Amino acid sequence: MHDLTPSRRSDVLPFRAMDVLADANRMLARGEPVISLAVGQPEAPTPAAAIAAADAHLRRGRIAYTDAPGLPALRQRIARHYGEAYDVDVETSRIMVTTGSSAGFNLAFLAAFDPGARIALASPGYPAYRNILKVLGLEPVEIPVDASTGYLLTAEHLGEAHRRNPVDGVLVASPANPTGTVTPPEELKRLIAFAGENAIPFISDEIYHRLAYTGGETTALSFSDRPFVVNSFSKYYCMTGWRIGWIVLPPEMVRVAERIGQSLYISAPELSQIAATAVFDATEELDRVREGYVRNRDLLMHELPALGFRDIAPIDGAFYAYAGIPEGEASASDFCRRMLAECHVAMTPGIDFDLTLGERFVRISYACGNAALSEAVARLKRA
Amino acid sequence: MHDLTPSRRSDVLPFRAMDVLADANRMLARGEPVISLAVGQPEAPTPAAAIAAADAHLRRGRIAYTDAPGLPALRQRIARHYGEAYDVDVETSRIMVTTGSSAGFNLAFLAAFDPGARIALASPGYPAYRNILKVLGLEPVEIPVDASTGYLLTAEHLGEAHRRNPVDGVLVASPANPTGTVTPPEELKRLIAFAGENAIPFISDEIYHRLAYTGGETTALSFSDRPFVVNSFSKYYCMTGWRIGWIVLPPEMVRVAERIGQSLYISAPELSQIAATAVFDATEELDRVREGYVRNRDLLMHELPALGFRDIAPIDGAFYAYAGIPEGEASASDFCRRMLAECHVAMTPGIDFDLTLGERFVRISYACGNAALSEAVARLKRA
Repeated sequence: MHDLTPSRRSDVLPFRAMDVLADANRMLARGEPVISLAVGQPEAPTPAAAIAAADAHLRRGRIAYTDAPGLPALRQRIARHYGEAYDVDVETSRIMVTTGSSAGFNLAFLAAFDPGARIALASPGYPAYRNILKVLGLEPVEIPVDASTGYLLTAEHLGEAHRRNPVDGVLVASPANPTGTVTPPEELKRLIAFAGENAIPFISDEIYHRLAYTGGETTALSFSDRPFVVNSFSKYYCMTGWRIGWIVLPPEMVRVAERIGQSLYISAPELSQIAATAVFDATEELDRVREGYVRNRDLLMHELPALGFRDIAPIDGAFYAYAGIPEGEASASDFCRRMLAECHVAMTPGIDFDLTLGERFVRISYACGNAALSEAVARLKRA
Repeated sequence: MHDLTPSRRSDVLPFRAMDVLADANRMLARGEPVISLAVGQPEAPTPAAAIAAADAHLRRGRIAYTDAPGLPALRQRIARHYGEAYDVDVETSRIMVTTGSSAGFNLAFLAAFDPGARIALASPGYPAYRNILKVLGLEPVEIPVDASTGYLLTAEHLGEAHRRNPVDGVLVASPANPTGTVTPPEELKRLIAFAGENAIPFISDEIYHRLAYTGGETTALSFSDRPFVVNSFSKYYCMTGWRIGWIVLPPEMVRVAERIGQSLYISAPELSQIAATAVFDATEELDRVREGYVRNRDLLMHELPALGFRDIAPIDGAFYAYAGIPEGEASASDFCRRMLAECHVAMTPGIDFDLTLGERFVRISYACGNAALSEAVARLKRA
């Protein structure tokens, strides 16, 4: 039998951070002392309260499907969180628990857009946006942002792009991956107003919330109940491998997303939902982890220029530094490959995040512990 | 701001079994004694070996992303399973761990088909196929099968459909949901040969393997390395709520599926992967659960005709009885609603599985314990 031909839509670029993770894991398995600054994954463990809740449930032995929108207790707890953290009322019925934010983006895109729709987003940006859009037949409209404006996507940028060629939706991440840019509240308000005036869906990626280091963190729900708000327990809450997140839906999209989710996901993992319900009580433990990121950030802000990195993005939020490679380096891919081989430090080449200029940049995740980052910096200095 | 308009592709039918589950869960929360025969979910707990493995990992505290294709140990264990259970060699590299079979179907469809492609499948059949295909812009070509042929989709059926209007792919489930039909090995071989001759992808849903009660269970991989084989830990292995399964990929589709998975899922839940690796050693415990299904099956084969059900499907595999509602009942939806309200027995109306004739049928899941099924039958008798 002949080989099958892959679909055209499956011709997406690899998510290189995941390829680097696979390489790093193979090296670790061989006993090589790799320090990974490649993936957006906290080194800190899942908080004790979440582990204990999962453990208690595990001992009952039956891990079952939940309702497609998630366990009522978790949905209620998330709704309460919006009151506590942002002073915003969100009805529990609008909250759908998802298998990581990945499922949240997929659900939002499917609910809101038919093939051919054009979705505006900032470049550099999270590569999975572009790849998910492409496999769903949607067109990412990448709006370049750069160091001159702190990598901020503004309502003016959006308006210009829309006038040139109308877009059908817009996605904004704040704090942003890979740049760490935090969109100021007034700018977020303007972006959402623009989407409202043009009756196009607005998707707010808030998965790095609680990790803004210079203030300015606002939820899109402060300004409207129309945005799709995607969030996750992976980052601040240190629960990557649990694959658990949530989406807040515009009221008219609740049943739409539930119907899609019933078939596409059935439900999010139950044990992860139980653990996530408990993790909201772990703020003290998590804020200590966050203090470690603050120290890491200070270290990088001091050391990256000394190491020859240039055009360093704001580092205001999330746990990434996005920085131009030192002078004389030919490409970020080569530079990352060499650093992994020579000093066992894994970083992600910027080409993941920016198809145009990315080979001049790397993304350095500082979600590791202070000791690991100091050691990584020392190795880079020697290399 | 005006309401947003849902996309056209999101206009899929609800998965009514999940709606019934949500109703049943609400009634249970109110203390009503619901027996659910609605969802394909074992009442038996996750095997002790899997719980113990998850527990040991949980105590280490760090639950992390894995490589996108899954933990090497689990992929190797699955490969070994093909040798042990089917005497078939499968390279570990062709195995990708997925977040339930739901992710496996999604990955196979995305890797193999572009929008507009027509995929042949049997009706009645699992509704999520139809819904996932629709949201991905693909066209399900439903080939009616009925009691006269034991609900078997044959190569002849497929050939006729293809001659009328060529299809671009074919999906066959054996044992099948909701009918319990097991495709005999020679027929499976013919179906795969047909796909090979016509150079169209073949997707084999093997999630109910190890639950065929009258023999005849074969993997598509016995005949070719070209089928996409989707499997799951949810059914025989009693791990629904863990959301964990796998797909065996044609060699030329390995990197294609990995690239899509990196963006669409990142990875399957790590704790579920750890538990799944251990569950292969729980055969003794799981075979006792299976013996319970055999007793349940005997009970239903005896009692369903006595209760007035008609045109009963083979009940040869999986854990479903698909049966025509008793004479005088207007519709399956009404019948299911009344039985849930009056005697707290939840069943799924056939309209989930068959848009044409489904209102004449119900699906009864017998994945519950013997006591629960006996009690449910007694209640139905009284009603």
